[in-house]
Amino acid sequence: MAQKHKVVVTRKLIAEAQNLLNTVPGLEVVQWPSEQPCERSWLLEHAKGAAGILLMLSDKCDEELVSKAGDQLKVIASFSVGIDHVDRKALKERHIRLGFTPTCLTDAVADLTVMLILMAQRRGGEAMGKVLAGEWPQMPWHPLLMTGPQIRGCTVGFLGFGRIAQATLKRLLPFGIKRAIYLTSKPGKPIKELEDQPGLATEAVGSIEQLAAESDVVIVGCPLTPDTKHIVNADFFSRMKKTAVLINIARGPVVDTDALVAALDGGQIFGAGLDVIENEPNIQADHPLLKQPRCVLMPHIGSATIETREDMAIESVKNLLAGLKGEAMVNEYEL
Amino acid sequence: MAQKHKVVVTRKLIAEAQNLLNTVPGLEVVQWPSEQPCERSWLLEHAKGAAGILLMLSDKCDEELVSKAGDQLKVIASFSVGIDHVDRKALKERHIRLGFTPTCLTDAVADLTVMLILMAQRRGGEAMGKVLAGEWPQMPWHPLLMTGPQIRGCTVGFLGFGRIAQATLKRLLPFGIKRAIYLTSKPGKPIKELEDQPGLATEAVGSIEQLAAESDVVIVGCPLTPDTKHIVNADFFSRMKKTAVLINIARGPVVDTDALVAALDGGQIFGAGLDVIENEPNIQADHPLLKQPRCVLMPHIGSATIETREDMAIESVKNLLAGLKGEAMVNEYEL
Repeated sequence: MAQKHKVVVTRKLIAEAQNLLNTVPGLEVVQWPSEQPCERSWLLEHAKGAAGILLMLSDKCDEELVSKAGDQLKVIASFSVGIDHVDRKALKERHIRLGFTPTCLTDAVADLTVMLILMAQRRGGEAMGKVLAGEWPQMPWHPLLMTGPQIRGCTVGFLGFGRIAQATLKRLLPFGIKRAIYLTSKPGKPIKELEDQPGLATEAVGSIEQLAAESDVVIVGCPLTPDTKHIVNADFFSRMKKTAVLINIARGPVVDTDALVAALDGGQIFGAGLDVIENEPNIQADHPLLKQPRCVLMPHIGSATIETREDMAIESVKNLLAGLKGEAMVNEYEL
Repeated sequence: MAQKHKVVVTRKLIAEAQNLLNTVPGLEVVQWPSEQPCERSWLLEHAKGAAGILLMLSDKCDEELVSKAGDQLKVIASFSVGIDHVDRKALKERHIRLGFTPTCLTDAVADLTVMLILMAQRRGGEAMGKVLAGEWPQMPWHPLLMTGPQIRGCTVGFLGFGRIAQATLKRLLPFGIKRAIYLTSKPGKPIKELEDQPGLATEAVGSIEQLAAESDVVIVGCPLTPDTKHIVNADFFSRMKKTAVLINIARGPVVDTDALVAALDGGQIFGAGLDVIENEPNIQADHPLLKQPRCVLMPHIGSATIETREDMAIESVKNLLAGLKGEAMVNEYEL
C-alpha cells in the first residue's frame, strides 16, 4: 500500500486488534474513541474519502453511507456474523467488497447452547429465583423437589443443522444422548465424527411435525428468513412432548413468542432456554415470558466471550486490510 | 421370606419403586403417606418391631431410633448418597446393615456441574438478572458487553477426583479444554478413556496451592471431612487467577463462604457456581453471597432429575429387600 489509505473504524477495538491496525504503514485511521456505539452523524461526516470502513452490527451500512464515502471506497469490514445491517445491493453496484466474521463464534455459541439446555431441563432459572427470594429455607426436601428431565437418553432435535448445531451435538455426546435428528434446508452429509459415534443415531427427519413430536430437546439454529419466521408456533408446541424443552440460539422471530408463553402456561412443554427473542432488546420487566418460571432468557450473549470477541476484532481488521490490498479475506460475503 | 417382616418407609415413593415394594409377598409395609418429610414422632412410634427401615437424608437414624425399633432390626436402607444422618456406630454394634445409593446420581450431578461452570464463566446469573429487571433495553451493544472467559483452552482443576469429577471431565472434553489437573487423597490411575484422549494432559498435582494457581476452573468434588472443611479459603482464593471460576458441587463447608464473598467482591476471581453452601437450606434473601452478581447459587439440585430420583428410590427398595433376605445389596456401606 504505497498510497495513503483512509480507514474509518466505528469502535475502539480490543488491544490485539487495535495494535494490528496501528502497525500497518500508510494507513490514516479515523476512529470513534469509545467502546460504546458510534453516532450516525459522526460516521457520515468521517466516511468521506475512506477506502475502508470497519463497522459493527449497530452501524447501518446503507446507500447514504457509501455515497457519502465516495468512489474510492473498496471495503466494508463488518464485526459481525449477521449482515442484516448492510445494504448488499448498494455495495455490489459499486464493487465494494464485504468482509464479516461468521466462523469464530461457533464454539462460544455452542457452549451457551449446552448451558441453556441444562438450565431449561434442570429448572435452573426457577431454582436460582427461589434462592434469591429467600425461599430455600421453606423448601423441605422430598424426592421430587425441583426435579427435571435428565439429558441422558434424550432425543435431540435440531431445526437447522449448520456449524453451531453440529458443534453443539459434539458437546452433547458424552452426556449420553440417545439420538440426534435434524431438519435442514441444506441437506448434506453429517460431519464424519458424528457418523463415527458408537451408539448414536443421527438422521434427517422428513418434516417439522416429526421433529417437534420426537424430540426431548428442540434446538432452533436456523437462519431467520420469510420462510422460518414463526416456524415454531402453536401447532409446533402442540406436537411437542410435555417433558421436552425448546432452545433458541438463532434469531428471536423464528419462535412465535405468544405461542411459547401459552405453551409454557399450559404445560404443553417442560421449559425453554432462549438467547434471543422477538423485539430484543426492547424487553421490559413486565414481558409475559419473564413471568414464566420455566423460561430462561439471556440477553443475546451467545458470542460474548472475551476470546471470541478478540478473534472477531482481529478477523475484522484482517478483512479490512485484505480488502484494501485486493487480497483474499478470512471471510468474504459473496454479494 | 416365609416369615412376615415389618418394614417402615418414611416417604411415599415414586411409582415404580412403590410397586416393587408392594408386590413383595410377606411384607407388612408401614409408610408415611406423603412426599413431604416424615415426622420424627411418627417414625419413632412405628419403628417398633421393624425388620427394615427405608429412610431419607432428612430422617435422623440414631441410637434412639434403632433401640426403639428393637433387636429384630436387620437393615437401614437410606435413599441418599451421604450418610451423615446415620449413626454408623449404633448400627455396627447391633449388626444392622446399611444400604445407600451413591452411584446412580453421578450423571445428574456431572450434568449440573457443567451447567454451573458455563453459568459462572458466561455470567449467566448476572445476565438473567438484568433481563428480569428490565435492563436489557438500556444495554447498548459493544464488543465487550457481558463477556466472560471461554472454556476452550482452559485448565480444569479438580479438588477430589472421584466418580462425579471424572464424569464431569468426560463431558468437558468436546468443549476443547486443554488440561485437567487433580488433587485427591485416593491417588490411582485415571480412568482409561481419559488417558486415551488425544490432546488432553491429565495429571495429579502435588499441592492445593498448585491446583489453585494453575486452574481456570476449580471444581470442588471432595467429601466433607475435618481435613477438608474450609480447605478452599482466603489463601486459596489469593492464589487463583482473576479470570478463574470456582464450582462447588460437594458439600458447602468445604468452601469458606466469607472468604468467597471477599474474593468475589475484590475481583480476586471471576465468578462462582455453587450447588451447595454452608448452613443450607437456611439461606435468607439478605445473605451476602446473593448480592454478588457473579455468583450463581442453586438449592442443592445436583441429583434432582426425575430419572435419578426414580433410580435412587428403586435402589433403596432393592437394598431394603436384600437386607431382609441376607443377600448382596446394590450398594452397601461398610460399617
